[in-house]
Amino acid sequence: MTAYTATVTVRLKRGVLDPEAETTKRALERLGFELQGLRSADHFEVDVDADSAADAEERADEMAQRLLANPTIHDYDVVVEEAE
Amino acid sequence: MTAYTATVTVRLKRGVLDPEAETTKRALERLGFELQGLRSADHFEVDVDADSAADAEERADEMAQRLLANPTIHDYDVVVEEAE
Repeated sequence: MTAYTATVTVRLKRGVLDPEAETTKRALERLGFELQGLRSADHFEVDVDADSAADAEERADEMAQRLLANPTIHDYDVVVEEAE
Repeated sequence: MTAYTATVTVRLKRGVLDPEAETTKRALERLGFELQGLRSADHFEVDVDADSAADAEERADEMAQRLLANPTIHDYDVVVEEAE
């Protein structure tokens, strides 16, 4: 078994309203920053022991499908790295 | 001017309690997943027009310092890519 860290990034699908991001964008503009857009996402770093990176990725993918992401409104991606 | 996307990831510093991550970890375990740890972070994708990637990074860094991160409890990193 090897220790891996799977990074799961959960984003709102295109077209889903994101009032939190809109508020953050406006607050930055009020501070004088110029920006064209801002999207927020949730980011989970999951430490798993697995036989291979592919196995770790499969398990993180299942975690995303079952709990971390809501398929109606979210897209997600999974990146696996060996833990330091 | 070129369009860049700066990704700012804001993490809690080591030692700062993260009850949300703890709850998520326990929920995954209740679903039958085995995991050694889970950290959550905020992830912002900021679209900026800038003269260079270095300029875009500097501005995103300032946004993180002034609004997106709280230096008392957060670490952050910034990654800049040319927008598609």
